[in-house]
Amino acid sequence: MAARRLNIGLIGPGLVGKALLTQISQQADALRSEHGIVLCVLGIANSRAMLLQKMLPIDLSTWQEELSSRGTPVDLYSFAQNFQRTKPGQAVCMVDCTASQAVPALYKRWLAQGFHVVTPNKRLGSGPLADFRAAMAETRSGRSMFFGEATVGAGLPVLSTLQTLLATGDRVQRIEGVLSGTLSYLFNVFTPGQRFSELVADARRRGFTEPDPRDDLSGMDVARKAVILARQCGVEVELVDVELESLVPSPLRGAASADEFLERLPEFDAGFEERVQDAAAKGCVLRYVAAIDVAAGACTVSLQAVPGSHAFAQLSSSDNIIAFTTARYHQQPLVIRGPGAGAEVTAAGVFGDVVQLARCLGPPGSGGM
Amino acid sequence: MAARRLNIGLIGPGLVGKALLTQISQQADALRSEHGIVLCVLGIANSRAMLLQKMLPIDLSTWQEELSSRGTPVDLYSFAQNFQRTKPGQAVCMVDCTASQAVPALYKRWLAQGFHVVTPNKRLGSGPLADFRAAMAETRSGRSMFFGEATVGAGLPVLSTLQTLLATGDRVQRIEGVLSGTLSYLFNVFTPGQRFSELVADARRRGFTEPDPRDDLSGMDVARKAVILARQCGVEVELVDVELESLVPSPLRGAASADEFLERLPEFDAGFEERVQDAAAKGCVLRYVAAIDVAAGACTVSLQAVPGSHAFAQLSSSDNIIAFTTARYHQQPLVIRGPGAGAEVTAAGVFGDVVQLARCLGPPGSGGM
Ligand SMILES: NC(=O)c1ccc[n+]([C@@H]2O[C@H](COP(=O)([O-])OP(=O)(O)OC[C@H]3O[C@@H](n4cnc5c(N)ncnc54)[C@H](OP(=O)(O)O)[C@@H]3O)[C@@H](O)[C@H]2O)c1
Ligand SMILES: NC(=O)c1ccc[n+]([C@@H]2O[C@H](COP(=O)([O-])OP(=O)(O)OC[C@H]3O[C@@H](n4cnc5c(N)ncnc54)[C@H](OP(=O)(O)O)[C@@H]3O)[C@@H](O)[C@H]2O)c1
Repeated sequence: MAARRLNIGLIGPGLVGKALLTQISQQADALRSEHGIVLCVLGIANSRAMLLQKMLPIDLSTWQEELSSRGTPVDLYSFAQNFQRTKPGQAVCMVDCTASQAVPALYKRWLAQGFHVVTPNKRLGSGPLADFRAAMAETRSGRSMFFGEATVGAGLPVLSTLQTLLATGDRVQRIEGVLSGTLSYLFNVFTPGQRFSELVADARRRGFTEPDPRDDLSGMDVARKAVILARQCGVEVELVDVELESLVPSPLRGAASADEFLERLPEFDAGFEERVQDAAAKGCVLRYVAAIDVAAGACTVSLQAVPGSHAFAQLSSSDNIIAFTTARYHQQPLVIRGPGAGAEVTAAGVFGDVVQLARCLGPPGSGGM
Repeated sequence: MAARRLNIGLIGPGLVGKALLTQISQQADALRSEHGIVLCVLGIANSRAMLLQKMLPIDLSTWQEELSSRGTPVDLYSFAQNFQRTKPGQAVCMVDCTASQAVPALYKRWLAQGFHVVTPNKRLGSGPLADFRAAMAETRSGRSMFFGEATVGAGLPVLSTLQTLLATGDRVQRIEGVLSGTLSYLFNVFTPGQRFSELVADARRRGFTEPDPRDDLSGMDVARKAVILARQCGVEVELVDVELESLVPSPLRGAASADEFLERLPEFDAGFEERVQDAAAKGCVLRYVAAIDVAAGACTVSLQAVPGSHAFAQLSSSDNIIAFTTARYHQQPLVIRGPGAGAEVTAAGVFGDVVQLARCLGPPGSGGM
């Protein structure tokens, strides 16, 4: 089958970026033979160095050594310039696998010059509305596209499903979800009689939380996801507009280190115990829920008591879950559930976007962008 | 924004087809302005008559009167011919919303001539493997595409999710699901002490079953969905290879009418009662489950006792549910749940495919097929 070439610049070969490069490399033959897609990684950049190729793709079995041995100091301006030489009929996709603010600041320019952007980075989608709008405006002409499936639910088909609902004229009324793997896990195991502080310390030891658990418990990551979902539905919300309940007790927000935080967290166990007891008394369990009410234009992120029969109560492990209530799915919502974090599934979400993008370029030989 | 035109021939304006035409008509402006997609319905055919337009699209607010007043006897050969005059740069999509065998027999020819096909009709995907393969072979060149999202789970993102998993190199190990809205409903409400025959009769009265409930209870529709899913995973299975447990007691398979069937079904209540009792004694409930074991190449469709803690036990209403266990989703599956039948959501699934197809034609002006 004739094949269509997509040139890729990968920024941020960390946990997710590295997994993505491995997946691309392993799937290259099948993509070419079954889907007519040839992915050529022509650039890789981390926070210090970059590796660039003009025409021949980077060898994905040796990129790490090459980046160390012949990488040059990173400069994202020349990084992008390297792709401007791309031949007509070939497309360019910048894949941002950083968590940085600096990279999203470049999307608008890239989109304007016809580069596509794929990312699991939440910074544009949940950043200042004006920036988000300005970048999206560049995709209006159809010359360039932006994909961020992995920003919510990692590899789960959350944003693509929402976008299809909207594109086909469904009206989304409410979105509710448990969108943090860490907080899903903590409250799936937290029952009356346990000490919340011990659960947190244990989860951190097992690598289930961020190095500083406050980065999970603050709810900020969940609030960012809520903003991304809300904006898809046309709700023009800023991150500060989210009614956010932080689970970091206020006296501990200023604690100097994660260790100091964990040392003092037991002082607040009684408060958590009271909430889980109150919930249990009503046949409920606690879940950290993001909710978007589209008509009201409101996002809330908070610890909720949900009845034992509710789909969210039946969560286990560190699963995410998201429920869409719409004009068409009004009696029973459309629900998606599964692991919503982890390098492999997040990379798969990014990879899915890249494949989707390649498909949107039109059939091979049609000369699409 | 520049727009890309997709000419549509709709065959089968029944429950689903009619809902689809309404959805397309209501969403036309948004599709053009937000997605650069112009859908032009140039032909509508039912089992008796057809309405054709050469250039100007059919007015979707009056098509029913027009079909009755100036429709000509249906002839799918001239129906397709009408689209061959389509200008270069415009694409053609045949949308088959019938349940007929005769229409899928034409897909191969249509795909070969560069027409795309979108359908909720399970007859090709679950029909003879040789026919399915021959039709799919026509899509290999990338010149034409086939979409059947609504054949499994109606509007739920089942096949698209599976296809993305596979395209990104995940290895699917097992698929399990409750894939019949009617059978989901019956077993979600069936508890010890109830008469199964009364539940069936009541569901029929309320329009929840096919006119002859044996069409649901035979499990044939579920078996067809299992075959469609299995083939996506490369399992080369024929419908007769499915290990299928029919819920129609064998003595009643030959009953002359649905009424006679319902009259005699009470004779078999004791058997159903025994099964639901046995399940309850083990803390289980009954669910009618389709299971595909990819490594073993096996599909089974049968009534299963599932533990109360299992995701399938927590179903309600007539929801479908489907769980994908894969190399990447191995500890916890990726699960999709929600209404999997009904004209509106099924039409939305078909509409989603049409939009996806239009996107795959490449950006406006690229001259894609
Ligand atoms: N991990 C998950 O489960 C998950 C789930 C959903 C979404 N995400 C998102 O995926 C993204 C990546 O996550 P991760 O876990 O892979 O992070 P990570 O392991 O910390 O990797 C980040 C990478 O970005 C690079 N980087 C940082 N700033 C940069 C800059 N200004 N210019 C160039 N490169 C820069 C880092 O380079 P150095 O090596 O030089 O520092 C590193 O290679 C984040 O946006 C995260 O929110 C992750
Ligand atoms: N309804 C659901 O919830 C649902 C869910 C998933 C999938 N589906 C699938 O969607 C399809 C349509 O279902 P439906 O409920 O809309 O069926 P329906 O109401 O019975 O409509 C069928 C339509 O097909 C037309 N037709 C039948 N044979 C034809 C032929 N040989 N040539 C041209 N037109 C023909 C019929 O025309 P006449 O009016 O002249 O008879 C009618 O317009 C089926 O394949 C079904 O399995 C349905």
